[in-house]
Amino acid sequence: MFALENDTIVAPATAVGSGAIAIIRLSGKNSFDIINKIVEFKKGKIDKNQANTIKYGIIKDNQEVLDDVLVSIFANPKSYTGEDSIEISCHSSKYIVDRILQLIIKNGARIANAGEFTQRAFLNGKLDLAQAEAVADVIASQNKLSHSLAIKQLRGGFSSEFERIREQLLELCSLVELELDFSEEDVEFANREKLKELISHLSQRFSNLCHSFKIGNAIKEGISVAIVGSTNSGKSTLLNCLLQEDRAIVSDIEGTTRDSIEEYITIDGVGFRFIDTAGLRQTNDSIEKIGIAKSYEKLNKSFIALAVLDGNKDFSILEKELKLILDSINLEEQKLIVLVNKIDIQGFKEKEEGLKSKLKEVLNKDIKIISISSKNNFGIDMLKSSLIEEANIDLLSSEELIITNARHYQALEQAKNNLDKVKEALDNQVPTEFLAEDLRLVLSDIGSITGQELISPDEILGSIFSSFCIGK
Amino acid sequence: MFALENDTIVAPATAVGSGAIAIIRLSGKNSFDIINKIVEFKKGKIDKNQANTIKYGIIKDNQEVLDDVLVSIFANPKSYTGEDSIEISCHSSKYIVDRILQLIIKNGARIANAGEFTQRAFLNGKLDLAQAEAVADVIASQNKLSHSLAIKQLRGGFSSEFERIREQLLELCSLVELELDFSEEDVEFANREKLKELISHLSQRFSNLCHSFKIGNAIKEGISVAIVGSTNSGKSTLLNCLLQEDRAIVSDIEGTTRDSIEEYITIDGVGFRFIDTAGLRQTNDSIEKIGIAKSYEKLNKSFIALAVLDGNKDFSILEKELKLILDSINLEEQKLIVLVNKIDIQGFKEKEEGLKSKLKEVLNKDIKIISISSKNNFGIDMLKSSLIEEANIDLLSSEELIITNARHYQALEQAKNNLDKVKEALDNQVPTEFLAEDLRLVLSDIGSITGQELISPDEILGSIFSSFCIGK
Repeated sequence: MFALENDTIVAPATAVGSGAIAIIRLSGKNSFDIINKIVEFKKGKIDKNQANTIKYGIIKDNQEVLDDVLVSIFANPKSYTGEDSIEISCHSSKYIVDRILQLIIKNGARIANAGEFTQRAFLNGKLDLAQAEAVADVIASQNKLSHSLAIKQLRGGFSSEFERIREQLLELCSLVELELDFSEEDVEFANREKLKELISHLSQRFSNLCHSFKIGNAIKEGISVAIVGSTNSGKSTLLNCLLQEDRAIVSDIEGTTRDSIEEYITIDGVGFRFIDTAGLRQTNDSIEKIGIAKSYEKLNKSFIALAVLDGNKDFSILEKELKLILDSINLEEQKLIVLVNKIDIQGFKEKEEGLKSKLKEVLNKDIKIISISSKNNFGIDMLKSSLIEEANIDLLSSEELIITNARHYQALEQAKNNLDKVKEALDNQVPTEFLAEDLRLVLSDIGSITGQELISPDEILGSIFSSFCIGK
Repeated sequence: MFALENDTIVAPATAVGSGAIAIIRLSGKNSFDIINKIVEFKKGKIDKNQANTIKYGIIKDNQEVLDDVLVSIFANPKSYTGEDSIEISCHSSKYIVDRILQLIIKNGARIANAGEFTQRAFLNGKLDLAQAEAVADVIASQNKLSHSLAIKQLRGGFSSEFERIREQLLELCSLVELELDFSEEDVEFANREKLKELISHLSQRFSNLCHSFKIGNAIKEGISVAIVGSTNSGKSTLLNCLLQEDRAIVSDIEGTTRDSIEEYITIDGVGFRFIDTAGLRQTNDSIEKIGIAKSYEKLNKSFIALAVLDGNKDFSILEKELKLILDSINLEEQKLIVLVNKIDIQGFKEKEEGLKSKLKEVLNKDIKIISISSKNNFGIDMLKSSLIEEANIDLLSSEELIITNARHYQALEQAKNNLDKVKEALDNQVPTEFLAEDLRLVLSDIGSITGQELISPDEILGSIFSSFCIGK
């Protein structure tokens, strides 16, 4: 088991760089003693009775004044970590922060490991594991959606849902245990039907949650949008248009973009990762060939594919291009938006409707087709709202839980597999004692998400907290 | 006059980047009202009575939870700015910080200008001008020396010395005013000798202070050390040796270093800026010529010159090289250390003493000559301690005031000039009323340093605080 260490840890809690204030954080039973040794306060020393107050003091290394500081006092158990804690607010100079850290270490603390403050908060029962993981997600959140998912998880909304699932699992267990108690009498318990019903309900729930990871992960990392199309169809110009700056090199020479370019853009609070890819075409240039192979790969992994067609080419060519793209994506799993570009060129208006209806036939499915001119910024707003629509983030406004963490996803998949075994065993009339064992595995899988039941806690905890920044 | 604005200002106070905590600072009379509108506390609202305490709360934009925060409460006049102030400690996410700032602005605050918090502290009498300027120096300090000068100034040690100078000036003024009172009786006052004595004492003091700016500025910016010598004498190898990494391109081809390279190195708590220069030699390469011209310029401006000689060359060549360097520096103002390099090469030991004494003759002054092998790291410790010695920073351990700020230096030079006018007038028996006017100018010059008497305050204040970072 991950033991709670009882030494005192210290770390800078604010980013290094130009700012006015830097915060240094201490936690552990000697926090107050250490501070009393190195800070001169106006009146005497600090102690537990001054919890949740701020004191002005002068921090000294022997007789040398290091800085004027404000000391915030937090006492066990009402602190972030649940331990006695101190936050020193000093001038934001790397030199001063380093000197203060050295002084504190000289007086008995040690530098905290990455995430160790939050780890202590978990071990002291201030946060469960899912909440602790949310701390890192909250800090990393870059847009309204990822932020709101992370905040919900941090504030326990996520954990309480899993508590309800756990209760249902415990109910299942008790039904099975009940049958076990009666097993010597060789009476098959009447509630086997109820058992089956509960299991299939939970199995469906696990499936839904696993499925939500696709959107959850996309929200967390940014929804990936691959911009694909033949060379010179205007993919890079489109990306620049979305970015409103000249990120990609744009020229009239075919094959200008060889590497894929990725850009993060927030639209209406949703983060999108736009991937500009090399144009899809037959080529003998070996470097370009690699680029095109990468394009297919990016296209294949994207959440949304933006197919850019040059509206001024003949339909027969566009049909071939579109089919090439359709062959590379899976419309069951991925979204597609077709863009007919370059409508600024004279004579397009007349053929627009005809072209669109022909394209619709090729698509053979209800796919959005939007006319744009990336050169003249036309149709871009329509494209943006379609992207929001296809991202399908109204999922979020529903009360449905969304999984954003790969560890949770894996635990749920494992839980689902173990539950399926229970179901199978039940169908095959396997004795109840075997059912009970598998059910306990499911409970453990679910428990590992919030940390209530850990199978190999050291391993899991180690991997969770090591991804944190120092000082958290 | 710079009027104290009575609106409420807000700004992030910590650096943007990966950290655990970010601090947002508010100051002004509506600080508490704004916070009470946007933060839900466990118990009621915050007010003045909770000064110097920390409250936990949830910050909300309408119903959307933005973050769990800690709110530190500071009340007028016991705050940094002297006004009601709040520090919000939130998760260090740029997204969250931006949302909270927007929310606060929506509720009536405005984004602070650079340095505006410290400016308010000055206008509210919490700091004098020299102390306010020291805040920026404390944050920028990179080593023990610059830090200790800045901290001394911040903590008022500097201002109190100027207070003493001001008292002496006021004494001078009163002596002159006394004479003015008796002027109608056409009696020349007996104390004219005392007047002269006081003036010459103050004039000397101003000179010393102006002189201290050379070392003060060097300490603040790093003491500049120009590494000079003929091509291929091993200047770049020496710099790398000091840096213990490969910063400069080193090769055996003459003229490898064309641009001057500058590196900041801290030795025993003193910051040095080492400037590697292009080798001094006759050349037809036009780019190298520019480099060599720059070398002379850098050499001329340096605090210490390190002359690197290839110890294996004939003395006649070294003599020429050394004379070239001696021609380009002013030994009254600059320090020189001569390094005899490449002593690792066989056969050097035998000729070492002879070479050194011949070099001494050329130098014609007591200049340090150190044998080194930058290739084998030999003699480098000796070089480092010589650098510390030549930097002459024992000045610091004395109680003598050191000027580090260019504005203070200019004020002192002006004060000295105006005082010299008083002296001259006195010698020329100019009527006392003219003396009084010039003396008032001196008082005003000195007063402008701590901000007691400002001639054109708007101008001075504007230039001082605009160099601050936002949030300070």
